[in-house]
Amino acid sequence: MGTPDPLPSWNDTAAKKAIVDFVAKVTRPGSADYVPPPERIATFDNDGTLWPEKPVPFQLLFALDRVKALAPKHPEWTTQEPFASILKGDMAGLAATGEKGILAVMAATHAGMTTDEFTQAVEGWIATAKHPQTGLPFTAMVYQPMLELLHYLRASGFKTFIVSGGGVEFMRPWTERVYGIPPEQVIGSAGKLKFEARDGEPVILKLPEVDLIDDKDGKPAAIQSRIGRRPIAAFGNSDGDLQMLQWTTAGPGARFALFVHHDDAAREYAYDRADKLQQFSVGWDEALARGWTVVSMKGDWKTVHPPENARR
Amino acid sequence: MGTPDPLPSWNDTAAKKAIVDFVAKVTRPGSADYVPPPERIATFDNDGTLWPEKPVPFQLLFALDRVKALAPKHPEWTTQEPFASILKGDMAGLAATGEKGILAVMAATHAGMTTDEFTQAVEGWIATAKHPQTGLPFTAMVYQPMLELLHYLRASGFKTFIVSGGGVEFMRPWTERVYGIPPEQVIGSAGKLKFEARDGEPVILKLPEVDLIDDKDGKPAAIQSRIGRRPIAAFGNSDGDLQMLQWTTAGPGARFALFVHHDDAAREYAYDRADKLQQFSVGWDEALARGWTVVSMKGDWKTVHPPENARR
Repeated sequence: MGTPDPLPSWNDTAAKKAIVDFVAKVTRPGSADYVPPPERIATFDNDGTLWPEKPVPFQLLFALDRVKALAPKHPEWTTQEPFASILKGDMAGLAATGEKGILAVMAATHAGMTTDEFTQAVEGWIATAKHPQTGLPFTAMVYQPMLELLHYLRASGFKTFIVSGGGVEFMRPWTERVYGIPPEQVIGSAGKLKFEARDGEPVILKLPEVDLIDDKDGKPAAIQSRIGRRPIAAFGNSDGDLQMLQWTTAGPGARFALFVHHDDAAREYAYDRADKLQQFSVGWDEALARGWTVVSMKGDWKTVHPPENARR
Repeated sequence: MGTPDPLPSWNDTAAKKAIVDFVAKVTRPGSADYVPPPERIATFDNDGTLWPEKPVPFQLLFALDRVKALAPKHPEWTTQEPFASILKGDMAGLAATGEKGILAVMAATHAGMTTDEFTQAVEGWIATAKHPQTGLPFTAMVYQPMLELLHYLRASGFKTFIVSGGGVEFMRPWTERVYGIPPEQVIGSAGKLKFEARDGEPVILKLPEVDLIDDKDGKPAAIQSRIGRRPIAAFGNSDGDLQMLQWTTAGPGARFALFVHHDDAAREYAYDRADKLQQFSVGWDEALARGWTVVSMKGDWKTVHPPENARR
């Protein structure tokens, strides 16, 4: 009787072997590559790595739904862009407002309330909202093979962190339940916060100013700022994750870097070099040149999403 | 045969009883105050709470020693304040340069190098530098009763964090060894960081701009930003910790707040309301009004520092 397969949703291909070999060598006592448990830090991107990011990152869908929910309190939005376009369901009109429009949406929906109020809004949305193409709850669309990988790493003494360009306060309400990753191990983009007394009760307000953009160069800097220890393994899916993988692999000793390649139009999405929003091109080239693991969702994964009875 | 006393350096006074009662009620399954382990977050100030902060915070002594170490590379410092005063050992001259002088010292000694280089400087200093009054290594001056408290909380399923006004990169190199608190559970004041390639090798540079001042109002905001979960217990020693204790105790369910009162001039230091740098006055009043625990170092602690054979 052998040990149960820790990664049953992975086909027996080179990607799975690379993961298992890495974990074996850093955890085997006496191994030349042994790493003590406190230093077994693994960092994961979220959008596109642990769950999908198409047709647009899910947090943007949350923001658009929040505009609709908040509209009764903002009669001026019926004529004011980008809100007018959103309320009319005119996505081309929203797109025409560009980055400035998106920033206005984020400021209106992610700031000007307490952190507790924002958490409640996220919890309500994530429990009820459905993906526009699959009709599934968003948390039902996480990647089953990645859930197994997170669990396998933790069972092997790793501490798993999310290091995402997405908003930290948007992820924390559900990452512990869905990924087994507690709030304090979630790093993401964030606005500034302000502690104050409101009617004698202490609250923390979300301000519209940016505190951290956790993408590209910002990822290694955020890892140093929040974790203070260089990961030995890092997992991403696009060029925005490249610097995190560079920083991880530049340390001494055994290191592991992996990109998830979205090449499965039938079961999920297929996009890479030509994608404008989530490009995977420079990172792919570097992965090929340096022998990092590139996961083919089509070829390396038996299943993509959790079975219905296992959804969280 | 009873359970061994988890806090042997604490006298059997009300302070110890308050701690033990709190831990018992939040950990006892079925208790009305039971708190699941993931939510057992405890935050500790460092300077004055886990180790002393007199005659000045130890990080300032590190900075002054760094000025001396770096002086050969900066011939201009012999005539340029505040460096000239420091190099002459003229502390009154340094004090005369005020906050501007201190900021110049911090920028010169805590920025303009990589995080790895700074860590090496801290490790070298903490291993060799001696306290100007006791002649002891600084890490030998940590508070033995607080070490026992940290250990007791962790053994009771708590996750212990440092939330200090001191510099995060100054604490992380030694907190795991000395306090059992890993780098990712250390929050402190910080400068901005920048990821870049230096001779093809990725490095993270420490910039002279402030990223976080982790004091007063900044403490609850940093707790939300870094931990994302409200502590159920918080420990401090001065008015700079008051907001952290307010935020902690304002949450629902059982909560614990404790101030260490420095009233032991014989074994350590005595200072409170009249102290200019580390005042304990508004916080003391609020602690008295709200029934928080105020530890008398003189009356509640059997010993202050670890015995020689237990130093780390």
